[in-house]
Amino acid sequence: MFHHSSKLQYTVRVDKPDPQFAKLLQQAIGGIEGEIRVAMQYFFQAMGARGDDRIRNILMSTATEELSHIEFLGHAVALNLEGAPVTAQEEAAKDPVVHAILGGANPRHLLSSGLSAMPVNANGVPFDMSHVYATGNIGADMMANVTAEAGGRVLASRLYNWTEDSGMKDMLSFLIARDTMHQQQWLAILEDMGGLKASLPVPNATPQSHEATEHSYYYLNTHLDQDAPEGRWSSGPSLDGRGEFSVKAQPEPLGQVPSLGKAKPNSGAQKEQI
Amino acid sequence: MFHHSSKLQYTVRVDKPDPQFAKLLQQAIGGIEGEIRVAMQYFFQAMGARGDDRIRNILMSTATEELSHIEFLGHAVALNLEGAPVTAQEEAAKDPVVHAILGGANPRHLLSSGLSAMPVNANGVPFDMSHVYATGNIGADMMANVTAEAGGRVLASRLYNWTEDSGMKDMLSFLIARDTMHQQQWLAILEDMGGLKASLPVPNATPQSHEATEHSYYYLNTHLDQDAPEGRWSSGPSLDGRGEFSVKAQPEPLGQVPSLGKAKPNSGAQKEQI
Amino acid sequence: MFHHSSKLQYTVRVDKPDPQFAKLLQQAIGGIEGEIRVAMQYFFQAMGARGDDRIRNILMSTATEELSHIEFLGHAVALNLEGAPVTAQEEAAKDPVVHAILGGANPRHLLSSGLSAMPVNANGVPFDMSHVYATGNIGADMMANVTAEAGGRVLASRLYNWTEDSGMKDMLSFLIARDTMHQQQWLAILEDMGGLKASLPVPNATPQSHEATEHSYYYLNTHLDQDAPEGRWSSGPSLDGRGEFSVKAQPEPLGQVPSLGKAKPNSGAQKEQI
Amino acid sequence: MFHHSSKLQYTVRVDKPDPQFAKLLQQAIGGIEGEIRVAMQYFFQAMGARGDDRIRNILMSTATEELSHIEFLGHAVALNLEGAPVTAQEEAAKDPVVHAILGGANPRHLLSSGLSAMPVNANGVPFDMSHVYATGNIGADMMANVTAEAGGRVLASRLYNWTEDSGMKDMLSFLIARDTMHQQQWLAILEDMGGLKASLPVPNATPQSHEATEHSYYYLNTHLDQDAPEGRWSSGPSLDGRGEFSVKAQPEPLGQVPSLGKAKPNSGAQKEQI
Amino acid sequence: MFHHSSKLQYTVRVDKPDPQFAKLLQQAIGGIEGEIRVAMQYFFQAMGARGDDRIRNILMSTATEELSHIEFLGHAVALNLEGAPVTAQEEAAKDPVVHAILGGANPRHLLSSGLSAMPVNANGVPFDMSHVYATGNIGADMMANVTAEAGGRVLASRLYNWTEDSGMKDMLSFLIARDTMHQQQWLAILEDMGGLKASLPVPNATPQSHEATEHSYYYLNTHLDQDAPEGRWSSGPSLDGRGEFSVKAQPEPLGQVPSLGKAKPNSGAQKEQI
Amino acid sequence: MFHHSSKLQYTVRVDKPDPQFAKLLQQAIGGIEGEIRVAMQYFFQAMGARGDDRIRNILMSTATEELSHIEFLGHAVALNLEGAPVTAQEEAAKDPVVHAILGGANPRHLLSSGLSAMPVNANGVPFDMSHVYATGNIGADMMANVTAEAGGRVLASRLYNWTEDSGMKDMLSFLIARDTMHQQQWLAILEDMGGLKASLPVPNATPQSHEATEHSYYYLNTHLDQDAPEGRWSSGPSLDGRGEFSVKAQPEPLGQVPSLGKAKPNSGAQKEQI
Repeated sequence: MFHHSSKLQYTVRVDKPDPQFAKLLQQAIGGIEGEIRVAMQYFFQAMGARGDDRIRNILMSTATEELSHIEFLGHAVALNLEGAPVTAQEEAAKDPVVHAILGGANPRHLLSSGLSAMPVNANGVPFDMSHVYATGNIGADMMANVTAEAGGRVLASRLYNWTEDSGMKDMLSFLIARDTMHQQQWLAILEDMGGLKASLPVPNATPQSHEATEHSYYYLNTHLDQDAPEGRWSSGPSLDGRGEFSVKAQPEPLGQVPSLGKAKPNSGAQKEQI
Repeated sequence: MFHHSSKLQYTVRVDKPDPQFAKLLQQAIGGIEGEIRVAMQYFFQAMGARGDDRIRNILMSTATEELSHIEFLGHAVALNLEGAPVTAQEEAAKDPVVHAILGGANPRHLLSSGLSAMPVNANGVPFDMSHVYATGNIGADMMANVTAEAGGRVLASRLYNWTEDSGMKDMLSFLIARDTMHQQQWLAILEDMGGLKASLPVPNATPQSHEATEHSYYYLNTHLDQDAPEGRWSSGPSLDGRGEFSVKAQPEPLGQVPSLGKAKPNSGAQKEQI
Repeated sequence: MFHHSSKLQYTVRVDKPDPQFAKLLQQAIGGIEGEIRVAMQYFFQAMGARGDDRIRNILMSTATEELSHIEFLGHAVALNLEGAPVTAQEEAAKDPVVHAILGGANPRHLLSSGLSAMPVNANGVPFDMSHVYATGNIGADMMANVTAEAGGRVLASRLYNWTEDSGMKDMLSFLIARDTMHQQQWLAILEDMGGLKASLPVPNATPQSHEATEHSYYYLNTHLDQDAPEGRWSSGPSLDGRGEFSVKAQPEPLGQVPSLGKAKPNSGAQKEQI
Repeated sequence: MFHHSSKLQYTVRVDKPDPQFAKLLQQAIGGIEGEIRVAMQYFFQAMGARGDDRIRNILMSTATEELSHIEFLGHAVALNLEGAPVTAQEEAAKDPVVHAILGGANPRHLLSSGLSAMPVNANGVPFDMSHVYATGNIGADMMANVTAEAGGRVLASRLYNWTEDSGMKDMLSFLIARDTMHQQQWLAILEDMGGLKASLPVPNATPQSHEATEHSYYYLNTHLDQDAPEGRWSSGPSLDGRGEFSVKAQPEPLGQVPSLGKAKPNSGAQKEQI
Repeated sequence: MFHHSSKLQYTVRVDKPDPQFAKLLQQAIGGIEGEIRVAMQYFFQAMGARGDDRIRNILMSTATEELSHIEFLGHAVALNLEGAPVTAQEEAAKDPVVHAILGGANPRHLLSSGLSAMPVNANGVPFDMSHVYATGNIGADMMANVTAEAGGRVLASRLYNWTEDSGMKDMLSFLIARDTMHQQQWLAILEDMGGLKASLPVPNATPQSHEATEHSYYYLNTHLDQDAPEGRWSSGPSLDGRGEFSVKAQPEPLGQVPSLGKAKPNSGAQKEQI
Repeated sequence: MFHHSSKLQYTVRVDKPDPQFAKLLQQAIGGIEGEIRVAMQYFFQAMGARGDDRIRNILMSTATEELSHIEFLGHAVALNLEGAPVTAQEEAAKDPVVHAILGGANPRHLLSSGLSAMPVNANGVPFDMSHVYATGNIGADMMANVTAEAGGRVLASRLYNWTEDSGMKDMLSFLIARDTMHQQQWLAILEDMGGLKASLPVPNATPQSHEATEHSYYYLNTHLDQDAPEGRWSSGPSLDGRGEFSVKAQPEPLGQVPSLGKAKPNSGAQKEQI
């Protein structure tokens, strides 16, 4: 069960409102790198977590933290929109510089939300929940979470570089820090479960008899005109300790030429196909 | 530039066509765990890869392989739909067992595609390209790729368990094997670049001065009624070697009570808000 | 800032797991009548609420409650999926009745989520955040909230009728009750602000000079072959007390025949259009 | 059956074409507050209306009117795009002011539609039909319709404020007026059916025995640090006359700690979960 | 401006309601081959039609007809859902055959729409307006319209084959007929404008100087292991009379090896990329 | 099976990077007129092609070519983004002209992709695979392909007109040429199968007994106030040689007034409807 306290998790200060930056911040709320995504991803993973109950606990706890991130980011968007012109008669709206800035703002902040945050990304595309990655497999889910936090910290760093507002920089430095920890904690769960090597290949419970293991450790070079680049992936023991890496170049197809023959009568095809 | 040869990368054999299994296989084509996704993800990552040219090379090579996976899976879907009834007059359509099976099939395999594969998932929802994760940051992208392959191998294992068709099991054992290698190779790139620790936190180029590091290594326990579970994440050195893990329980908000005050006149609010 | 306690807001009990009912319950999680929607709608309305701070307070408080509803519904879905067959070899999977039931289940509960809830509706379509209605106008937002709760209570009633599981009926009777209160509380806010009449027309701050009031109170009958039905809408004082209802039948167009003339050269049109 | 006459329902005049305003107007066509939405919503409600045939009649009649609104708004978009530059060689395109304005225009008006309206919102996101709210319950549907018209009138008022073109202001004043009437008429239907109180809670046909009525009339305050605000919702008779409002603060969870135990073998989980 | 008469364009009769067929019929309403699509496509093409005003006239007229098709199909869906069980207590719901049929029905017809039509396809996926193809180029638009009607007639034929209800067969035979005419009329417009040859290549107004004509008439065979099949496309005069067809086999890339070099500092990349 | 060579199909040269043009080019990658669409459409059509194996061969070959188009367009986007400012501190970012240009750029090229291409259109909306038109009917599919290539050539022509960069013009002239050929080749397949007339109406295998042929050849004029325009569609032999065109004006409805009567008890309706 969820509870709320009325203060924000972290202080939000905007020294100089900037409607364009409000648009950019939306990526951190409703983008695939954003906070709705991680909040919902951890929430649904928690609800489906089977096995070690500590993991469900951590997932739900961090889902809750991410909800608080949405909350202060939403406030940051609204503060960046404070005072934006809403009529063509306002002095600001007649200023060509303001006009240019508004051209780069999200018009729906004016038209649809009344100068406040929306669950959309920096292009105004609404977040959709297909981005909640939750498989019921802890290995796959932890990887998905590291991915989400890595993307989130890339985004926060880019936003940090793009603003000169010290309040916004302060808030983003907090987000950068929390994304550091969240990357760490999901990897630490894998450590706790025996380490990355023991987790591989995900799912590690798939019996090797279900796997055509002769195809499990070669790198397939599909380029016709270049050799495979050499590196950790091209030779030496595999990372799960079950095989040896090799390279397969100029691969020959192993299968047949596909053909479906004639179409069935009454199947909606043209006469010529039947 | 791409080329094609007419044979499939791997043999596709269906001993007993099954329209319900055709529906399930669609998840491996058009699901977020599927082959369109990885093909397009590696393709777009390749086109945006900056730095070590070997990585662009590998990304494009494996994108090409994944296109071949779409191709043989598409053939598998069509073969599972061979002979399905298309009119109410056919004997098969009158068989209650067939009728029940068709109730569990995707009706658009009959109505829309003429008994062949579609770029949709097992619910018939079309794949959308927002699932192409490509940040321009190699660390984030490699994690996204491991995630995709982990999800893919979980799916292939579940499909393997759900069928009794030996041809389908054979094809899926090949997919399971290739998903093993692809998990390996993306992690091997991180190894090649100095190892996971050196990559953390992603992006590792963000200066620590941009980060409120006092918030970078504590696990935040937002539960009111439970202590934080102990584990690798709650104490000891952080995984990037830059800090020490700790736990922050019963966290107090650090920010203000948010309030936006009155609405601006002419902003479309109610009189009572202005 | 959000907090969490480890128990569910309400008890979830499933006497007899039913994968088909798990699919139906998804509508209450990820449907437009579902809990993700109201949680996020009230959350974003709260973040954009200007004027009376009590309203922001109530919106955030109820958003928090709705998050708890997602949580127990998610548990209900997982419990309905407990024990569902995951391999073709299981006895249950060979039972024709079970087979028929699984044909009516969501295959992604098996393939994608590992037998747990997903943020999708009963068709497996992911929720998308465009359904978060939040205009910054309290009148419009309260109406949107009554609408959401009315739809939610219709859905909960239909689910209640469709199950015979006493645990599920108990849980749904709680949801029906809370949807009653939530309908009430949003209307009560309008009462508190002066009543529905005073709120109309939304936005009530739009000056009448911006309105072609000669068109504000007639019902337009666009049927060619039927008179307008008579009722409260066709005569008598308008509900906002500003006008008198009337009927306009067989309406004549007030505007011009539209024509755009020739296409511009170099605009990508055919020669014949230029 | 539908018919058409060649003139527009209302005159459209654009004194000074403005590609940026063309982009904003798209919200009134393809936004969730727009005309496609109400046209389709009333149309589908009409097709599913059971009970009093007057309501089906009104729904279809007003659906037809909304189609006419799409038509004149579409013409308004095209007229705002008249003369926009389509090649980099045109003088206008070289004017920095025009260039800035075009930066704020929808590039697909140039690239995709050939300078005419599209069924998208002001961000260029296509309308999707999930926003057609039609439950088969007249109470829920009328509320949804008031919501749609309230949102529509908020939008039309904001557009009115944002333009200085007298032709556009005239057209928008007509839309504001019709949105007034449409808010009125849907509420008038509820009046006609016995009034709002008799309609509550929606659906009013749900037996009270299906409802855990001990939870039906308390406001739940989930804030840990603030008392519930007092108002019409916190005490006194409920709006449906069936209960008394009260406040429940510091709510205790009523349910269990959820736990799903181990994962099933062969379910695609990690070994550690089984 | 639109008008309505209260009768349907064509009689709808359902001899034996069938909830599964109701689901299939949804494809003809909300599928990409369905009536919402053509109604909206012709409507938006009409609003953007420049040049010959007859074409705008025909587009709007046929858009109006397609709205009438939505209307009678919506009625057909509702009639197929008449009497479907809505509670688990009904006798019908306990019948295993009915149960199996309902497993193959759209659960949202029960849960969300109250036994009536929805603007979704046979998978329950809502129609989205990105499928409104309207370019402002008459040649491209007419082709898009023939495509839509061809897809529509394929679908109607498949539905016709799948039902044994004589009322439904009668209604579908009308749709098949109208789709015949609509294919004809869009092609007839091209005839009227000088014939298909004169329209090619679309847009026929693009100057040949904008085209690398040495690449305009060869068929590119990208297969490595098969010769190009011979046919009308491989030799002889081109269909626009401007060139000669030929085949280019084993094509060599004409471009460079792409490389983007290092990433920019502060661009969110890993250190290793900079 | 697919293969790759490391060079691009065609040279990409950008003389003067332009982030706004990078945004426009996205339409040619991820728009409905773009290359992802045709690549995937031909790919899925190939996988479902029944009948003449030459057609499958051509479809797959051209799908492969379109993948190469994505590749060089993706490179063109990245080159247009080369050197764009990524921090507010850069000189360029402070230049008002650059600032205005960036206001018209896609912010996600900066925030999400690290200055490279994305699978989105010029509005930043991701491509979704519902636009893969593949019916299993060769006639319908070839029409869909001509439509796609006509739309593609319209787009390429508009992009050509909008840029002054000679490298971009050169690349676009190649695309314009290939779109010419692709329009030709899909029509040539219809020629090869007997010509357009023999293909009509699609599907040509539908028996005339399934068609209410008395409705197959009249143009329906739904305008109340205008006569049907005369032209090839209004009189003379039909294009399939099976009938005579005529005009039906002032059409009378052929069907009934629809009414659904009362709602079923327990179906979630209001009391007044039952």
